[in-house]
Amino acid sequence: MTMGSMHTLELAGRRFTITRASAEDLLAIVALLADDVLGRDREGAGMATYERAFHQIDQDENQLLVAVRDADDRVVATMQLTLIPSLSRAGATRLQIEAVRVAESTRGSGLGTALFRWAHEWGREHGATLAQLTTDSSRTDAHRFYDRLGYLPSHVGFKLPL
Amino acid sequence: MTMGSMHTLELAGRRFTITRASAEDLLAIVALLADDVLGRDREGAGMATYERAFHQIDQDENQLLVAVRDADDRVVATMQLTLIPSLSRAGATRLQIEAVRVAESTRGSGLGTALFRWAHEWGREHGATLAQLTTDSSRTDAHRFYDRLGYLPSHVGFKLPL
Repeated sequence: MTMGSMHTLELAGRRFTITRASAEDLLAIVALLADDVLGRDREGAGMATYERAFHQIDQDENQLLVAVRDADDRVVATMQLTLIPSLSRAGATRLQIEAVRVAESTRGSGLGTALFRWAHEWGREHGATLAQLTTDSSRTDAHRFYDRLGYLPSHVGFKLPL
Repeated sequence: MTMGSMHTLELAGRRFTITRASAEDLLAIVALLADDVLGRDREGAGMATYERAFHQIDQDENQLLVAVRDADDRVVATMQLTLIPSLSRAGATRLQIEAVRVAESTRGSGLGTALFRWAHEWGREHGATLAQLTTDSSRTDAHRFYDRLGYLPSHVGFKLPL
């Protein structure tokens, strides 16, 4: 899936660009995933494992792995967007948002909010009528963030290792 | 995505077959989705809308729409399985389960449990290491069902109409 063009965000004097992640961004994205209170215990795999996963995502036309860069070209945020066609809710295509991380260095810049608004627009452009995500019950700051964006915490998210 | 072969379940003297849904099953599946305390207010679209959604699902090789038939060849259960490759959790492929419905006529037969066990096995065969689903907070019977299957209600599920 192509992104049309890169998108630029100007926020409080700081400039960020939203891009489709490339293989060169992988190390920086995995570092963002690991620099997290829950992620640090989960992200211990070797790079070959992440490279394999990256290629699977990259080849799936319903997936978009996002890398956000700051003015110094550092990757400072990431999210994975998945388009899921479905029958329920009157044949709704769902925009699923996973693996959201924003670097500490950009907190308070408004980047998180701007990135989600951009993601919702991207979803609408691709036919999605519902955005959905889950977040760990312990991430109370994230719950407030999603509440401010208009999300409703209507569901319980269950997980089972296979 | 092909299913290899159909799978047969023998449960308390009743026989069910698990199949990949075809266009001919669509009306029965939509009827199952609508015959539900939450679904009855959501599933008002015309069949053309559902047909369009069905073809999108059917053409996506990471999707499997399941139709379960009883011995009389009636569709008595459905679920949608989605394989989502991801970087997080050490490059885990996720098995997402959506739009699960089991007809009233088969409740108590053990079909729901057997169907989920089959779905987990299908996920493992396709490389998934984590199953995930969300269910409306009001579906307390479903919460107990997932708890018995070993799922943990570790996440909050947020939704936003786009």
